[in-house]
Amino acid sequence: MSTTINSLNWRYAAKRMNGQEVPAEKLENILESIRLTATSNGLQPFTVLVLEDKETREKLFNSAVKQPQVIEGSHLLVFAAWKSITAEQIDAYFDMVYEERGMEKGALVQYANFLKDHFTNQSETEIFNWTSKQAYIALGTALVSAAEEKVDSTPMEGFNPAEVDEILGLKEKGLGASSLLALGYRDDSADHMVIAKKVRRPKDKLFVKI
Amino acid sequence: MSTTINSLNWRYAAKRMNGQEVPAEKLENILESIRLTATSNGLQPFTVLVLEDKETREKLFNSAVKQPQVIEGSHLLVFAAWKSITAEQIDAYFDMVYEERGMEKGALVQYANFLKDHFTNQSETEIFNWTSKQAYIALGTALVSAAEEKVDSTPMEGFNPAEVDEILGLKEKGLGASSLLALGYRDDSADHMVIAKKVRRPKDKLFVKI
Repeated sequence: MSTTINSLNWRYAAKRMNGQEVPAEKLENILESIRLTATSNGLQPFTVLVLEDKETREKLFNSAVKQPQVIEGSHLLVFAAWKSITAEQIDAYFDMVYEERGMEKGALVQYANFLKDHFTNQSETEIFNWTSKQAYIALGTALVSAAEEKVDSTPMEGFNPAEVDEILGLKEKGLGASSLLALGYRDDSADHMVIAKKVRRPKDKLFVKI
Repeated sequence: MSTTINSLNWRYAAKRMNGQEVPAEKLENILESIRLTATSNGLQPFTVLVLEDKETREKLFNSAVKQPQVIEGSHLLVFAAWKSITAEQIDAYFDMVYEERGMEKGALVQYANFLKDHFTNQSETEIFNWTSKQAYIALGTALVSAAEEKVDSTPMEGFNPAEVDEILGLKEKGLGASSLLALGYRDDSADHMVIAKKVRRPKDKLFVKI
């Protein structure tokens, strides 16, 4: 059996967490997995806020429809997707590529210009939909990685984006919260979902083989 | 070092593949990982087409901007997201939950009605953006899972959605292609990206700790 499958079978979306802290090494492994995640064109068009500070998480609680994991977790990750993709961001990306790969500066200028044209012609909504999707690839990675570390993780879409953006000052930075991920440890005694069987469509309904 | 991190470090988006077949057991592990992926409310609002048939993949080649992996790969996964979420689909989901968890039929009717209301008030574009994001969580899982199996995987957004939907008859089924994933084996001799260093933003740029 593969580690990935074992991890996915172990995990569930904990509804209640017990406040226990996720050790630094485990947290860093989860963040490294997010960092290594593939994104379209390699742009990684998001920032991930790693909230350990309890006061900040308490401020978010009401805006995340009072989901207890926001406070009961050890950390709350906020996947904040870019609301625009500027020429400067694309240049910064390619500068990093040139440096990391020992390439001549400007070697990929046609590719860079193609991306600049591509994103300039899109509305903020279109951009944000696309950057959010890229962040969801990383969310998928984070769920597997956390489970491998035996850290519980609860992805959350139930929040008021405008309020969360306001509380965290995301708008000024050109960011918007696209999903939240609570990291921590399940509270076996309080969470009735601990014993609930995982429900997924069977393979013959989810897949069509041609 | 975690298996997930090792897998992510091993993988890259192969630009050329050598036609070698992915063994059935490895393919099934990748599909099982997709099946076990978390989605919002557990709805799994997508179907995944698993294309092994060469003729079908050849038909898609031009519509996927002639990316060689479409044909040179062993299989092409098409993540086809739902374009609407009907009351029938929600009822089918809850019927599955009742059966799998041995619950009384109708026990979660309020939750089901909440979801029906929620999705009825959204446009097809809003629904498809959301279902596509759910499919991207599964895409993230598939990338990790394939790498653990030492199977190369190349995610692709570069395709003409209308043409792909037409070729695969997705529209009639209320589906739309949201991303493609070629599975196969890298062609070391033809792919200059094999030796390219992986480029990612450093942790202090990608993460903000609070």
